[in-house]
Amino acid sequence: MFHAQILTLFPEFFESPLSCSIPKRAIEAGIVRVDAIQIRDFATDKHNRVDDTPYGGGPGMLMKPEPVVAAIRRARELHPDTHVVMLTPSGSRFTQAKALEFTGKPGITLLCGRYEGFDERICDYVDEEISLGDYVLSGGEPAAMCVLDAVIRLLPEVLGSPESAVLDSFSEEGILDWPHYTRPEEFEGKKVPEVLLSGNHAAIEKWRHEQARLRTSKRRGARVDHDEK
Amino acid sequence: MFHAQILTLFPEFFESPLSCSIPKRAIEAGIVRVDAIQIRDFATDKHNRVDDTPYGGGPGMLMKPEPVVAAIRRARELHPDTHVVMLTPSGSRFTQAKALEFTGKPGITLLCGRYEGFDERICDYVDEEISLGDYVLSGGEPAAMCVLDAVIRLLPEVLGSPESAVLDSFSEEGILDWPHYTRPEEFEGKKVPEVLLSGNHAAIEKWRHEQARLRTSKRRGARVDHDEK
Repeated sequence: MFHAQILTLFPEFFESPLSCSIPKRAIEAGIVRVDAIQIRDFATDKHNRVDDTPYGGGPGMLMKPEPVVAAIRRARELHPDTHVVMLTPSGSRFTQAKALEFTGKPGITLLCGRYEGFDERICDYVDEEISLGDYVLSGGEPAAMCVLDAVIRLLPEVLGSPESAVLDSFSEEGILDWPHYTRPEEFEGKKVPEVLLSGNHAAIEKWRHEQARLRTSKRRGARVDHDEK
Repeated sequence: MFHAQILTLFPEFFESPLSCSIPKRAIEAGIVRVDAIQIRDFATDKHNRVDDTPYGGGPGMLMKPEPVVAAIRRARELHPDTHVVMLTPSGSRFTQAKALEFTGKPGITLLCGRYEGFDERICDYVDEEISLGDYVLSGGEPAAMCVLDAVIRLLPEVLGSPESAVLDSFSEEGILDWPHYTRPEEFEGKKVPEVLLSGNHAAIEKWRHEQARLRTSKRRGARVDHDEK
C-alpha cells in the first residue's frame, strides 16, 4: 500500500477532496492511505505558536523551525522510508515525470506551509522542495491535494484502463494531448473531423500526433518540432 | 463582491477546502462568493450521462458537449459578465500574473473536467483554457481549488498586510522569493545569516535581492540575471 502523510495546520482541508471520485476509491480499495499530521501539535511553547516575525524585517509571519522539524521527525518515525517533500513556490517544478517518480517510493510526506513561508533552515530536513507552478497560494494545502491526486491516479490498479495514464498529456516528453471528440457527430453546427470517422487507424494516428505537436508548439513554445528528423 | 462559480461533477469536493483559513474568512467577510454548479444536472438523456467514448478509438471517456455547454450557459445567465475558464492540462499556463488579472474581472467560472478530457468543441464556449502545470490530475477540481485560492488571497482586504501579496514570489517578473528566517537565532547549530541581525536595512535589502536572483537562476534556469544593466 502506498502511504501518504500530510503535515499541515489544516488537516480538515483534505476531508472532502479525499472523499470524492478517484482518491476516494483508491483509499477504499486499500491502494493508498492518507494520514494528516497537525503541525500545531508539535508547538513547543504554551501558546502553541507555529509562526513568528521575519529577521531583517518585512511583512507577514514565517513558520517556525521547531514545530515543523518535530512534525517531520514524527512523520519519519511513523514511516522511516517516506520521501519528505516541502511544497513551496520557490521549489523545483512539479511535473508528470515527478508524479511518476513518487509512485515508485514507499510513501511520501507532503509538508504544507502557511503565512509568508518557512524558516529557511527547515529545508535541511526535507528530501525535496517542489512548486506546483509560478503562482502563490495561501498555503501548501491546495498544492498538496494536486500532488496527491496526480500520484494516486498513477498507482497500479487505480484507473480502470492502464492505457489511460500512459496516453496522457506529458507522458511523452512534454507533448500535450491531441483534441478529443465524442458524440454527437454534429453539435450546434460543429462537426467531428472526418478523419476520426474514417476507420483508417493509420490516418487517425497521424492526425492525432500532428494535432498534438501543433498544439504543444502553439501553447508551450517551440519545444517539439523535429519529428521529421 | 467577487463571484466565483465552479462547474463540476463533484461540487462536494470544495466543501472542506472552502471552510478553512483564508478562503473561509474571505467568504464570511462577504468579499467573495463561491457557487458550485453540478454539470450532471444538465444531462439531456434519461441516464444523466455526461461522458461518452472517443471517436477514432482510444481508452477512456470524454465529457460530452451538450451537458457541459448547457452548464456554461447557465453560469453566464446567472452572471453575464463572468469569465469562463476551462481547466485542462493542454491550456496556457496559470501564473501569478493571471491570478492578478482574474481579480480584475467581475467574476470567474471555473470549468472542471473528468475522465480523459473534454470534447474539443466545448472550447468554443469558454473564454480561456488554462493549465496549472505539466502534470495530469484525475479531474479539474484540485486545479480549480488552486486557482480559487490564488485569486482569493489577492482580493482587496483579504490578507492582513497588503504588502504581503506585493512581496510574493513572482510578483516581480518571475523572480522567486528570498530565504526567510525567524526565531530562534540558532536552531540545531544552524544560525540566521548575520546580515539579517545587523539592522542595516540597505545591506539586508541587497542580500535579499542577491539571494532571490541566485535561487531563481538555480531553480528556474537563466531567466533573470541582467540586473547589472
